[in-house]
Amino acid sequence: MKTSNQNIKPITTKINSNGNIEIGGCDLVELANKYGTPLYVFDEATIRSVIKSYKDAFKDFPKVNMMYAAKAFMTRAICKIMQEEAFGLDLCSGGEIYTAKSAGFDMSKTLFNGNNKSYDELCFALECGIGTISADNFFELALLNDIAKSNRQNIRILLRITPGIECHTHEYIQTGHLDSKFGFDLTQINAAVELIKDEYKNLNLVGLHAHTGSQIFEKQVYSDEIGVIFKEIRRIKDKYGIDLHEVNLGGGLGIKYTEADKPISIYEMAQTVTEALEKYSKKYDIETPVIFIEPGRSIIGTSGVTLYTAGSSKQVPNGRLYQALDGGMSDNARPSLYGAKYTVEIANNPNGVCDKKVTLAGKHCESGDILAKDIILPEIEEGDTVCFYDTGAYGYSMSSNYNRLLKPAAVLVNNGKSDIIINRQTYEQLTESDVIPDRLN
Amino acid sequence: MKTSNQNIKPITTKINSNGNIEIGGCDLVELANKYGTPLYVFDEATIRSVIKSYKDAFKDFPKVNMMYAAKAFMTRAICKIMQEEAFGLDLCSGGEIYTAKSAGFDMSKTLFNGNNKSYDELCFALECGIGTISADNFFELALLNDIAKSNRQNIRILLRITPGIECHTHEYIQTGHLDSKFGFDLTQINAAVELIKDEYKNLNLVGLHAHTGSQIFEKQVYSDEIGVIFKEIRRIKDKYGIDLHEVNLGGGLGIKYTEADKPISIYEMAQTVTEALEKYSKKYDIETPVIFIEPGRSIIGTSGVTLYTAGSSKQVPNGRLYQALDGGMSDNARPSLYGAKYTVEIANNPNGVCDKKVTLAGKHCESGDILAKDIILPEIEEGDTVCFYDTGAYGYSMSSNYNRLLKPAAVLVNNGKSDIIINRQTYEQLTESDVIPDRLN
Repeated sequence: MKTSNQNIKPITTKINSNGNIEIGGCDLVELANKYGTPLYVFDEATIRSVIKSYKDAFKDFPKVNMMYAAKAFMTRAICKIMQEEAFGLDLCSGGEIYTAKSAGFDMSKTLFNGNNKSYDELCFALECGIGTISADNFFELALLNDIAKSNRQNIRILLRITPGIECHTHEYIQTGHLDSKFGFDLTQINAAVELIKDEYKNLNLVGLHAHTGSQIFEKQVYSDEIGVIFKEIRRIKDKYGIDLHEVNLGGGLGIKYTEADKPISIYEMAQTVTEALEKYSKKYDIETPVIFIEPGRSIIGTSGVTLYTAGSSKQVPNGRLYQALDGGMSDNARPSLYGAKYTVEIANNPNGVCDKKVTLAGKHCESGDILAKDIILPEIEEGDTVCFYDTGAYGYSMSSNYNRLLKPAAVLVNNGKSDIIINRQTYEQLTESDVIPDRLN
Repeated sequence: MKTSNQNIKPITTKINSNGNIEIGGCDLVELANKYGTPLYVFDEATIRSVIKSYKDAFKDFPKVNMMYAAKAFMTRAICKIMQEEAFGLDLCSGGEIYTAKSAGFDMSKTLFNGNNKSYDELCFALECGIGTISADNFFELALLNDIAKSNRQNIRILLRITPGIECHTHEYIQTGHLDSKFGFDLTQINAAVELIKDEYKNLNLVGLHAHTGSQIFEKQVYSDEIGVIFKEIRRIKDKYGIDLHEVNLGGGLGIKYTEADKPISIYEMAQTVTEALEKYSKKYDIETPVIFIEPGRSIIGTSGVTLYTAGSSKQVPNGRLYQALDGGMSDNARPSLYGAKYTVEIANNPNGVCDKKVTLAGKHCESGDILAKDIILPEIEEGDTVCFYDTGAYGYSMSSNYNRLLKPAAVLVNNGKSDIIINRQTYEQLTESDVIPDRLN
């Protein structure tokens, strides 16, 4: 069965009686007029549909905790939805912890990841009642034990390990030692376990955590990952008599940005995972552990689109046609950062004949500020509402004020209703941290 | 004579009696302790020294207007310094215009650039009394004339042209038609001039503007640019009888990030420019125009450093040594965006023996968040203050809240005194635009 990560568009996308694209029952042109552009639009139905797919796909495997990877896109409204859906949160900074806490999120269902958590962040995490910490390295183990000890607390931890497997889209590598800034190398696990067992009495090691990449299209990577982790669990049990009964498999399931992308469905991923769990539980004679899955992009990526208004254009003689939009690399860094490609439509002209090759440029004073190079679209006119699909993940979350552009607003649409979840930044906010020293005044 | 853009370090950098690096008379370790890290540190003496070099270098050519390219780094304190130094500002958005205006800057000395200025931005620019607008395209000419007409105003404009010359560091291309989203192609100038002459009566065309790239190391590019522009000025005079007496040459002078970079001095650039002005004024029999130069990076780049605190580390068996810092791609996007390289020192151990190959990783949950790959440094210990040189340009200006990290503070140092010019962002500010719709509450 197909799942929403395999679609390019939010599930509620259609052409309405005005001849415009609508999402969540809201006309995109009307949204652009009402809220201004650039505008991030999130479709609640798609978010909940992906969540439902994850629940359904794993329903025969009851010991699973779904943790939304907040790094993909996080606001308090998103926290509320995750809470309603009984998802936990995978968090990676003090700022993310603060946001979850301030949304009233049940912090026992959160996990704190990261390769360089600071002392302040760890203290704050404990103060907020974080559920579990994925300990990344020796330095952190010592720091965390010190903090827990001075708090007279015991902390649930996972060990983040690098399983020698890494996958990014089509590239899938397996290696003895992964060249990664994250986690314990397989050869370092013993030393970590011994420290926890013998010295770090305030750390309660409950399991292992691995993460094999992002925008994953390969089933096999999940199975191989489980194999490596279970082998370690068996080894640790045999060597130290310690039972590890929680396994965090990370997230990373890919989504379809363009027709060229062929991600697997959530069901295929779940089947691979459950089969591997069964296989390796038998092979290593381990009671099946509780599993954590951390989907981020696959939930929010397809659910979000970005609307721009078309402005100036330029035809280079015998060259490219540039159409400028009113945003750019400040609201979507992925094209300039990763060469990311997107599917684009004209919200007020979805049925136009696609016969123009055009390059959609941002408005930044930088040649590299190109949002989509040489794509085929209907002829664009000034004032058109241009819709970029699949910008829900890592759009707002990586946004900047480059060229002192204001961060866009975001709305959540559902059943014909749109609600602001992020207000557009104001000029006053842009300068609120700005101070002129007296001697310059 | 050498100028500061040819140095890696701010001019006041030295090792003090504590054995630490100091800049502007301030011990970097003390700054890190006082203000926290990551911290942007700007050396006022270096800023003013580069400015002085620009003034000196062009002093025999009195008809020059220096315009600081605010996109490189802009705060109100920087605006105040530019005002004191009689520099103008090259601005590229409503946010930059707002910042300048709110700093009390003399707006008649500002110029508004950009390939897709919005109606609101253009109105705001005129309302703020912008000095000159560099008109980029046909759409903008029409828009601008409409606004000016309804304001019963005349607007000074330059035409931004693409001279068929582009230079980025070592790459220098000359072509008939430049593949660029910016400006009028040479073949489009006539049409633009005719529109202004015959229809857009509220536009006062005073000159031409070109920009040939950034991080330029090549003298020749400035000379060739002037050749192309002057040829056009002559042509326009002959064809339309219009005298264009202002020429904006753009900015782009390169700086030295590492020993591998060999930028030309400001004096060499000035000599090339003044010689070319003389040569082409003669060749085309044109009265030497007023020149605008827009230095950004060459003023602020070398003047700024970023301080980080070393945290966790990881030795991959038979592989890399990763040392994590407390910032990363959110405070400096250039390494992940452009593969930019930096010179790094340990502020509390500047004389240590450089015998360790290390990769300095950021703290973001992203494999690509690496600030410096395989550089040679003394052994780093947890708590060390790590100084990245030449981060003054496009560090803060491109900064994001990726992973919901807070934007760092910035201080201006001078004669042993440090003043906050940007307060560190707070968690409250991080969520101030965040709204939970009623139905989710």
